[in-house]
Amino acid sequence: MKKMLLASTSTIHGQKYLEYLLEEISVLFKGCKNILFIPFARPSGISHFEYTDVVKNTLKKININVLDYHSDEKICTNINICDGIFTGGGNTFLLLHKLYEYNLIFPLKDKINSGIPYLGTSAGTNICGMTIGTTNDMPIINVENHKALEILSFNINPHYLDPFKDSKHMGESRQTRIKEFHILNNHKVIGLRESSFISIDKEDYMLNGPKQAVVFEKDRKPYEINSGFNLKNLI
Amino acid sequence: MKKMLLASTSTIHGQKYLEYLLEEISVLFKGCKNILFIPFARPSGISHFEYTDVVKNTLKKININVLDYHSDEKICTNINICDGIFTGGGNTFLLLHKLYEYNLIFPLKDKINSGIPYLGTSAGTNICGMTIGTTNDMPIINVENHKALEILSFNINPHYLDPFKDSKHMGESRQTRIKEFHILNNHKVIGLRESSFISIDKEDYMLNGPKQAVVFEKDRKPYEINSGFNLKNLI
Repeated sequence: MKKMLLASTSTIHGQKYLEYLLEEISVLFKGCKNILFIPFARPSGISHFEYTDVVKNTLKKININVLDYHSDEKICTNINICDGIFTGGGNTFLLLHKLYEYNLIFPLKDKINSGIPYLGTSAGTNICGMTIGTTNDMPIINVENHKALEILSFNINPHYLDPFKDSKHMGESRQTRIKEFHILNNHKVIGLRESSFISIDKEDYMLNGPKQAVVFEKDRKPYEINSGFNLKNLI
Repeated sequence: MKKMLLASTSTIHGQKYLEYLLEEISVLFKGCKNILFIPFARPSGISHFEYTDVVKNTLKKININVLDYHSDEKICTNINICDGIFTGGGNTFLLLHKLYEYNLIFPLKDKINSGIPYLGTSAGTNICGMTIGTTNDMPIINVENHKALEILSFNINPHYLDPFKDSKHMGESRQTRIKEFHILNNHKVIGLRESSFISIDKEDYMLNGPKQAVVFEKDRKPYEINSGFNLKNLI
């Protein structure tokens, strides 16, 4: 029953916030009257109120109404009256921590599995995987558990970056980090490049956008999949 | 009483493992007969045995003896007989998890505070800060607590990278991530560029190496400090 749009990033270079996705978002939220925005990831520490306001003004352009931010508590009750959900990007640890703190894991999972239209960007996409074990974010807060919503049977690595050729930096590449993840974890990881997104409609998980994505499996060389690939074939 | 060498990285571009630091390491471990290597961070998933072997062969060149790896349990007992300690880089979450699992936090902290010569590279440097909240690594394993050894009163961000000019990538820069850290945390963060290291001798914490380092404080613009700066002035 799922209906989701999971994007690597909210913004692509040279464009405005969500600009490249507005058409897709129009389709996803068609007929919805009250979108709940979950602002807990707070990019650059922006307040929950300000973040919701940015989203509200952006989605107003395509005639989509986002519920006002009043308080964190109100978000917890609004989840029962909304008809669409958008979780924005920022820090994945902070986002998951808040979902645990407010006991929102089960209600959110339940809503998404029941088919409420769901939009995720970056951290909001990450939390739909099995764990947050492949986030790029800094662990700025202790999360009691890395277990995420488990809507997907794999993990996402958003903002996926290929190793830099000719780099003189000796810090691990994204690929090396994901290889380390697979020493201890078994599930697949999809490296989702910026401008890529996954459109989920019931049993179909289509990779969309102009770019390929990279699939990382334990004990196997990473490989590319094309836009238009149905990820249900990997599950 | 502390005597430490905390490096951003083990290896600099175009050189062999630890090559650029060998002279400093000779001085640090002068007179030591039995160096304990802590291999738990396992870069790229290398085994504890293999990792120890690499270190053993490298330090042999400067006539420093590293204790053989037999088992994780043996590391826990060797901490009582060694006269120097080296914690290597890799994944910081995994390293800290193992230190908690084997109850090594207190013994290690106690040894370092008592003045045993200690060498850390990357993850091995990171764990000497207040928390691992400014690591660049992926959270490939749940760590019960982000609290680290608290030998330093600040955090380190090893392999510090300046924001890329002209980058079209929209993932957060290192600076943005550390800013997000300071929304929730108060202690200072030192962005330690590759080839920089901190030499600690009793009360002195000298920044060394050819590069400047960046200091991040809550609610203050980041600023540079020069090689030769004594970090005790920041504490």
